[in-house]
Amino acid sequence: MKRMKAVIAYDGSGFAGYQIQPEARTIQRELMKVLKNIHKGRDVQVVASGRTDAKVHATGQVIHFDTDFNIPVEGWLKALNVLLPEDIRVSSIEEAAPEFHARYHTIGKTYRYKWDRSTIISPFTRNYMVHLKQRPDVDAMRKAAKAILGTHDFSSFCAANTGVVDKVRTIRRLDFEEHGEELHMVIEGSGFLYNMVRIIAGTLFEVGIGKRNPEEVAEIIRSADRAAAGKTAAAHGLYLENVEYES
Amino acid sequence: MKRMKAVIAYDGSGFAGYQIQPEARTIQRELMKVLKNIHKGRDVQVVASGRTDAKVHATGQVIHFDTDFNIPVEGWLKALNVLLPEDIRVSSIEEAAPEFHARYHTIGKTYRYKWDRSTIISPFTRNYMVHLKQRPDVDAMRKAAKAILGTHDFSSFCAANTGVVDKVRTIRRLDFEEHGEELHMVIEGSGFLYNMVRIIAGTLFEVGIGKRNPEEVAEIIRSADRAAAGKTAAAHGLYLENVEYES
Repeated sequence: MKRMKAVIAYDGSGFAGYQIQPEARTIQRELMKVLKNIHKGRDVQVVASGRTDAKVHATGQVIHFDTDFNIPVEGWLKALNVLLPEDIRVSSIEEAAPEFHARYHTIGKTYRYKWDRSTIISPFTRNYMVHLKQRPDVDAMRKAAKAILGTHDFSSFCAANTGVVDKVRTIRRLDFEEHGEELHMVIEGSGFLYNMVRIIAGTLFEVGIGKRNPEEVAEIIRSADRAAAGKTAAAHGLYLENVEYES
Repeated sequence: MKRMKAVIAYDGSGFAGYQIQPEARTIQRELMKVLKNIHKGRDVQVVASGRTDAKVHATGQVIHFDTDFNIPVEGWLKALNVLLPEDIRVSSIEEAAPEFHARYHTIGKTYRYKWDRSTIISPFTRNYMVHLKQRPDVDAMRKAAKAILGTHDFSSFCAANTGVVDKVRTIRRLDFEEHGEELHMVIEGSGFLYNMVRIIAGTLFEVGIGKRNPEEVAEIIRSADRAAAGKTAAAHGLYLENVEYES
């Protein structure tokens, strides 16, 4: 038995999210369907670094699965990309250590959130960026972002009732990049709570449009109250960009 | 009565083409539905510079319509973009001369055809570029393109049985641009026959992969025979980029 580790990319637009669920098109379901097909009808479990919600994209999601097939990695890459639907692509695949676990062994993740500040959004990016009707003050957003950096209890930035007890996470990087009319928030941390990136994006955007002061963010964290933070930003602006493992 | 001229962009992925047809989602149908809505149930004819096929995109299609509504152009822009589906956007709108005609008065058009040479195509561009499994020789394609430039009878590059009698057109520009792994063909001319850009793209690609010599293209033109030219390149790589009118 070999444990395979693969980096995958997907356009979340056509999916009800990563995780398998009855009667819904999900990324996990498509992956398992193809692996079952390759393994002549045998079920193959697929484990991802974590779920992504409906409409959320990935450029660097990581999965693992076990196989007793002796195919070279180039053959795996070709077979999977031929059989998978075009909105899921396998970027790379390798044999991992037998104990490698795509979910339990993550030591960090990077997400990117994309906004479009064009007056009129392009019809080509409508599923891939969130259109802003107001031009935010990016400097104010950068200032507010400083309070997010470091190790905090992120209860205020977690969708209520997730069942997760320990809400302490470490954010190592939180940058804003401007590419023409595109505004990206890039956030890297030890791990993320449910909806955490989207609530951070939504809250910092509210700072950007003057609805909140940059200084408020530290208080929001201290309050440990979801109601204190801003709205959850829309799903289709979010990309899982990288998953880090100990090397 | 005022004649309005608008520049529109659309993602062709979700449409059965520009022109209205029964029980199909088309760009013209969506435009007419919205204009009928704005004009309180009255039908408003929309005239475009020309049709585009199913899956073909536009970044600079031009339309005209007549209205007796006295709305400032800013109001038109907002109203249309609020009411239209997100895969059609109005980029600009202005009052035109009463005799302006979006179709009859064109003096030139520019199309762009996009290929992706990445080993693995991104799931985000699958509807917007044509993935090449072979790396074409762009210099050979540039060399072959020279024969297309100028005024010729383009019968060889026209889908059979279109009913168009005069197949003489003038190509003023035919360039290849490389943007990382993207390869674009940009073509500008006095006008284009049905499928002409896609047959030129398909033929020049066949030169790029060594299936034809660059010198063959002049012979293909001379033959005035559709069977002499290459395959019609896929629709989803094509963009109508600009329509020119006398100023």
